[in-house]
Amino acid sequence: MRTVKAGLIGLGTIGTGVARLLLEEGDSLARKVGVRIELKRIADVNPARRRALPMPAGVFTTSADRVITDPEIEIAIELIGGLHPAKEIVLTALRNGKHVVTANKALLATYGSELFETALKHQRCISFEASVGGGIPIISAIRDGFVANKIESVFGIVNGTTNYILTQMTLANKPYEQALAEAQRNGYAERDPHADVSGLDSTHKLAILARLCFDVDVDYTKIYREGIDHVFLEDIQDAKSLGYTLKLLAIGKKRGGAVELRVHPTLLPDTHPLSAVSGVFNAICVNGNWVGETMLYGRGAGQQPTTSAVVADIVDVALGRAQATFLNARCFRRKARPAKVVDMEDVTCRYFLRFTVVDKPGVLAQISGVLGKEMISIAAVVQPERFEGNLAPLVLMTHPAPERSVRRALRKIDKLKVVRAKSRLLRVEG
Amino acid sequence: MRTVKAGLIGLGTIGTGVARLLLEEGDSLARKVGVRIELKRIADVNPARRRALPMPAGVFTTSADRVITDPEIEIAIELIGGLHPAKEIVLTALRNGKHVVTANKALLATYGSELFETALKHQRCISFEASVGGGIPIISAIRDGFVANKIESVFGIVNGTTNYILTQMTLANKPYEQALAEAQRNGYAERDPHADVSGLDSTHKLAILARLCFDVDVDYTKIYREGIDHVFLEDIQDAKSLGYTLKLLAIGKKRGGAVELRVHPTLLPDTHPLSAVSGVFNAICVNGNWVGETMLYGRGAGQQPTTSAVVADIVDVALGRAQATFLNARCFRRKARPAKVVDMEDVTCRYFLRFTVVDKPGVLAQISGVLGKEMISIAAVVQPERFEGNLAPLVLMTHPAPERSVRRALRKIDKLKVVRAKSRLLRVEG
Repeated sequence: MRTVKAGLIGLGTIGTGVARLLLEEGDSLARKVGVRIELKRIADVNPARRRALPMPAGVFTTSADRVITDPEIEIAIELIGGLHPAKEIVLTALRNGKHVVTANKALLATYGSELFETALKHQRCISFEASVGGGIPIISAIRDGFVANKIESVFGIVNGTTNYILTQMTLANKPYEQALAEAQRNGYAERDPHADVSGLDSTHKLAILARLCFDVDVDYTKIYREGIDHVFLEDIQDAKSLGYTLKLLAIGKKRGGAVELRVHPTLLPDTHPLSAVSGVFNAICVNGNWVGETMLYGRGAGQQPTTSAVVADIVDVALGRAQATFLNARCFRRKARPAKVVDMEDVTCRYFLRFTVVDKPGVLAQISGVLGKEMISIAAVVQPERFEGNLAPLVLMTHPAPERSVRRALRKIDKLKVVRAKSRLLRVEG
Repeated sequence: MRTVKAGLIGLGTIGTGVARLLLEEGDSLARKVGVRIELKRIADVNPARRRALPMPAGVFTTSADRVITDPEIEIAIELIGGLHPAKEIVLTALRNGKHVVTANKALLATYGSELFETALKHQRCISFEASVGGGIPIISAIRDGFVANKIESVFGIVNGTTNYILTQMTLANKPYEQALAEAQRNGYAERDPHADVSGLDSTHKLAILARLCFDVDVDYTKIYREGIDHVFLEDIQDAKSLGYTLKLLAIGKKRGGAVELRVHPTLLPDTHPLSAVSGVFNAICVNGNWVGETMLYGRGAGQQPTTSAVVADIVDVALGRAQATFLNARCFRRKARPAKVVDMEDVTCRYFLRFTVVDKPGVLAQISGVLGKEMISIAAVVQPERFEGNLAPLVLMTHPAPERSVRRALRKIDKLKVVRAKSRLLRVEG
């Protein structure tokens, strides 16, 4: 049986999982796939981390260089995360003729084109199944399984931390701060939760998905982004009473020669398959012109599922499959065209609007009058029984309308005398 | 750009879809994946079928031989379905050095080992993504995406016809015959619906999934099988009142050195992701020791999704990836070990039991007495208000129990004087 030598950089949670799988289950994996993966070297700056592993002598090093300069090593597995020195390590590995496997979504969203270009120049590949959706094989599904399709849209729950928090808010009626604190206690949220709750992590993943789906190079900072840190319990409760579930979605849609790319809290009908995705699970819907509607569901983060995805990539490279894809696919080729991202004001969707109004006759007429002038059509009206003094909430669901008109209408409505707080806007899909 | 020549046998619904995609969208597909697929020849016994296609002169033939003996053709796409002459065509194609792409689940379930052995002997591959789950990339997910995992279970809805019928029964309260007739009118069921409604088609697909998941050769006729042709509206209604949804599931579970393989109507909690899978959609759950719980969802049949899967396979072969997998993976190698299938009486699960009883005191005591003697523990009791004369239904949900004990108990219960009809048994999962 052929043996392929690999080197691992970064013994954090994922790195330890990958090392454990290859060291402990490597024999059975080799019998199953017909090629043996030898973990020749493992590098981490912190030597204490090797202790958890049944590692043969001589495998461990504190220097990444000893992995990426070793001429015997064919595959470099980058699992240190962050932008630097991950970028430099990946570039050096590629220049030294190694294929790269990585789970680093921030790196790929930030420097993707440069890294892919370097890989192609050296006829090596970069595999990154674990960068989106944890153990869900979403990258290979889009790249290979749905290859015959023109992808029309891709959208889903790609961040487990925020989905855990929203699930707690929805099922247990906990306010945001309490749900976040609980997520932190259970290890589902970082001490500094900014990257997750602000939607930043989801924009990284959406940039990667958009490259595969729409064959464009995306600057993730251009993606419209709203996190969950300003989601109120009332948003969720009012949505529920209308038969909707609130989720943080990453949404990509083809719009002629441009793409809609946005990350924001979104209301979905309770019957939508994404509405049932709870806790730290992720799920991604892909719609193609031949395959129609699809969804892939699974654990979106954590040591075990992410290890599953990283090792799948390693096998893919060891069998030579990843190279056949990467070196031929247009979306990785030099000078992928930059994405023309639709301005958020030009997006059209349905809206959930909540106004805080004085409880007296004629209020609905005033508000609906403004909406009518902007040609925004109302689909449903609810007045939840939740008074504060003489103020009451008023909830409207609209038919599809351009965001520009809706924002303009809200600016006018917020100036009405009967409206006593900034109005709330949430977008609806499905 | 490299060109790979392919030949298509069978211009039915799927064949026409594949031909259309390759003829009409072949250029853009080639630019996307970096290899051109030329449909050199299309064979069908019925020359009238070519009419729907913008086919260049000289491509069409009525003889499959002109495809599988053409030395220029590298990929033979078998889409005639059925066992014969599909088997002979595939064998000849392989012997003539062609790779084979097929959607033929009956063929693979019946002659899989012989076909795979022949392929390996000639160092060619057989790709069959479209044989299970239509457009859902479930074969490649299990074979490649979850390759790092020991698969613990695979189960799901793999037949769109029966799921359409059950969905109609559930949502519109239509009895079986009416829902079947409607499915036939809408083209979702064949005029002779036996293969679908009897569960036969699901056993074919389960045999294919079990080979990939558990690395065994399955005789599909050994799979326990109950179709939906004896599902009553009351089954669905009583399940609903307990918070369960009835689905026809194909279930495979690893049990030490053996495997549990069964196809039968199954009650799932309403909160289970499979419960929300409606109409002609399919969804398959795979549980692995690293990835945990996953689900893949999409259209399970029909021209467009199946075409998507067939063309994905063709690209996979054209890029050389399919070969790298097939020729190395243990599950396709000669003499895959025959599956040791757990006897249905040795399966343990939860049960839904419905008895038709005389409406008088002491009946529950008698029935629960028999169950108690067999060590079957009751989890819930419901008496739906649905009297017929002095007879009433009595519904019990059990805790997990061996099927052998449950069947023995039912034989005893059916002899009780207070029980007036054959008792109903349905299995519960999730």
